[in-house]
Amino acid sequence: MSGWRHPARLVVLAFLAATAAGTALFMLPVAAEPGRSTGLLTALFTAVSGITGTGLAVVDTGAHWSTFGEVVLLVLCQIGGFGIMTMASVLALLVSHRLGLHMQLTVKTETNTLNLGHVRRVIAGVVTISLAVEAIGAAVLATRFWLGYDMTLGRALYEGVFHAVSAFNSVGLALYPDNLMRFATDPWICLPVVAVAVTGGLGFPVLFEILRGRSRRRGRWSLHTKITVPVYLGLIAVGTLVVLTVEWSKAGTLGPYGVGEKLLIGLFHGAMPGTAGFNTIDIAQLQPATMLVHDVLMFIGGGSAGTTGGIKVTTFALIAFVLLAEVRAEPSVHVMGRKISAEVQRQAVTVALLGVGVVMTATMILLATTQFRLDDVLFETTSAFGGVGMSTGITAKLPPVAQLVIIVLMFIGRVGSITLVSALALRERRRRYELPEERPIVG
Amino acid sequence: MSGWRHPARLVVLAFLAATAAGTALFMLPVAAEPGRSTGLLTALFTAVSGITGTGLAVVDTGAHWSTFGEVVLLVLCQIGGFGIMTMASVLALLVSHRLGLHMQLTVKTETNTLNLGHVRRVIAGVVTISLAVEAIGAAVLATRFWLGYDMTLGRALYEGVFHAVSAFNSVGLALYPDNLMRFATDPWICLPVVAVAVTGGLGFPVLFEILRGRSRRRGRWSLHTKITVPVYLGLIAVGTLVVLTVEWSKAGTLGPYGVGEKLLIGLFHGAMPGTAGFNTIDIAQLQPATMLVHDVLMFIGGGSAGTTGGIKVTTFALIAFVLLAEVRAEPSVHVMGRKISAEVQRQAVTVALLGVGVVMTATMILLATTQFRLDDVLFETTSAFGGVGMSTGITAKLPPVAQLVIIVLMFIGRVGSITLVSALALRERRRRYELPEERPIVG
Ligand SMILES: [K+]
Ligand SMILES: [K+]
Repeated sequence: MSGWRHPARLVVLAFLAATAAGTALFMLPVAAEPGRSTGLLTALFTAVSGITGTGLAVVDTGAHWSTFGEVVLLVLCQIGGFGIMTMASVLALLVSHRLGLHMQLTVKTETNTLNLGHVRRVIAGVVTISLAVEAIGAAVLATRFWLGYDMTLGRALYEGVFHAVSAFNSVGLALYPDNLMRFATDPWICLPVVAVAVTGGLGFPVLFEILRGRSRRRGRWSLHTKITVPVYLGLIAVGTLVVLTVEWSKAGTLGPYGVGEKLLIGLFHGAMPGTAGFNTIDIAQLQPATMLVHDVLMFIGGGSAGTTGGIKVTTFALIAFVLLAEVRAEPSVHVMGRKISAEVQRQAVTVALLGVGVVMTATMILLATTQFRLDDVLFETTSAFGGVGMSTGITAKLPPVAQLVIIVLMFIGRVGSITLVSALALRERRRRYELPEERPIVG
Repeated sequence: MSGWRHPARLVVLAFLAATAAGTALFMLPVAAEPGRSTGLLTALFTAVSGITGTGLAVVDTGAHWSTFGEVVLLVLCQIGGFGIMTMASVLALLVSHRLGLHMQLTVKTETNTLNLGHVRRVIAGVVTISLAVEAIGAAVLATRFWLGYDMTLGRALYEGVFHAVSAFNSVGLALYPDNLMRFATDPWICLPVVAVAVTGGLGFPVLFEILRGRSRRRGRWSLHTKITVPVYLGLIAVGTLVVLTVEWSKAGTLGPYGVGEKLLIGLFHGAMPGTAGFNTIDIAQLQPATMLVHDVLMFIGGGSAGTTGGIKVTTFALIAFVLLAEVRAEPSVHVMGRKISAEVQRQAVTVALLGVGVVMTATMILLATTQFRLDDVLFETTSAFGGVGMSTGITAKLPPVAQLVIIVLMFIGRVGSITLVSALALRERRRRYELPEERPIVG
């Protein structure tokens, strides 16, 4: 379980290979508009931003890239979203299997090994669910674009498909320079986008379990689903409440809107930090308190084996359960009738604290190499780590070293936690001898 | 071990009682300069700031308080520093004893119980060490004030004692409106202040062990001392390097100074976030990157049972060891030839993450109730939590609710971690039945 045969390293390799291919394609003269050329750093940044579904941009997407370049970007987003869902699900399967636990993600087989059949089943499931959700979302959006706006049926269909794909894969790219701000008060656009984005953000294991309805018939969902669904929705509710409370009467954001419109925008912006990162109000106008809450939600991200980055909802929830058990003097962590092993507790803490370390280090480098202040920089770094792609507008102004830091952050945010956890869980644990204990003073 | 008989609650009660007494004294008309009066919130803020040795102020200390008021403040600082060292040491003793481990802090006794003799020994040790270090520091400083500045011997002695006491107890109050900025380039003032402040910040258990030389003669220091000393000095080195690197040529801070002076100021400001919080350059002029590093160092604080706040050096180090062991696939955490129990690991994680939660919550409240930006607000909240008392100048401008938040932060930062850990460690752990394990997906 070491060396390059480790499955977690295969995931990293796959993403690196796709990044290299995307970078090369972006550097082709045909990828840029006539008269423009693309340097290595810009091409690399755009490739990683696309593959990780982040959507941060150092050049104006519409103005810089040719149609060919835009198609490359879209394909990278689609490959990235599909790839992460598949690979993260397979890794989760491997981990569950190795630990001898109930195989949540696949129909039980007679044999007790993970074979190509399982992987095929995961791929088939991801493709089916992705296309189905995107199709439904695209149909609803296209209908609205066609009936409610001055579009031909063909254009409306294209826009519907584009934004549904962008939402489900947590990309957050829109076909308008102001993202989705012009649709801020249209529930027929905003609500389908939120629904599709949240569905993609829940992650394949949860979607698979909910949609096949099998576990439910047997009387219960897996613990993973029982944690992810309420915590994810709860985080969206917290985000919504904060946006509404803080921004309600602010002139640059919710102030000009009516009560119903405020509620719609509030829900949209409560959901976006943990999902696709679209925006219907100006991010640069957000209050510092709203930004800090966004930072936290973006850092957490969405469900495991979903299309978002971050440390993931279950990691956050497990840490909360661990703290609760510790403060309540309970020697083991019990959640919804199940025990959380010490190993899983340690993994959650490791993922979260290493994530904090990575984001803080990146933030310090950006602060030291730019003139921007902490509000904007922390927003940028957590947005990159969480694969969200919201920005207060500093991305294109970053010097090369800072752009490199953002590239690394996007990469770590997308593949870091899944590869780390699977590497932790799949490795061999052995120690030849134990030392005597000693207790330093804590606190 | 529950209810108000719990020793950790006694510590909280003692601090609350001292706070109440201090608040009442500050509200007396005689405590303020003629023509000024003191409201409840200002009196409470000042009392908590003094008892916790933080030194944040909502009124101009020299202009608002009468000599009587200033004496009350000094006495509160002294009681607070003395009290926290004593009580935290006794709690640590209780914890060590309960866990059946080597009693690091006292000479071994025939009986195996913690009795009044131990407590007396701790108090005697704290008094002896405090007075000795303060006396040495005061002598050096007074000599310099007398010979190098235009002071009478009496004035020089008073200033020496004042600043030595302020440094050892991590208060950071100076007798000058610009704190110690006028002495920025005087190594005979700055170096003794750093030495005394770092000594106080190491904490009583470390000082006791080093000074009595007993453990060393037996061949080794306790793990607590072996962790605290290098990590604390390492954090100071990191702070110094960051200040020097980032501020070297900045006009508002190190720019105007010569190389030797820059090094002196860098060392001073590398040490102060984890100790007393004096300043020799203008805090409001620090670069955002320097401020963020200060935030981290202030959050960590100093050694256990020392005069600083924060989560403490060992807590930070233990978490680093836990992460390192986890990433290295080591099933147990071994540090310097000793094993760290799972219980202690959990306590360290709990203290640190609850600390993060408290500081983040306070930061959000301050952001939502003021117009200040994240740089200034996070600096203020981590400074309060760490009992440091550095500020970019926003303290006096905070609205009442934000002042209350800072009061709570100072209190939690000072007594929170020691009471939490001793409560965690001393409680009874029992669970009647165990549930089956289930593994949610992490990351
Ligand atoms: K995104
Ligand atoms: K202080």
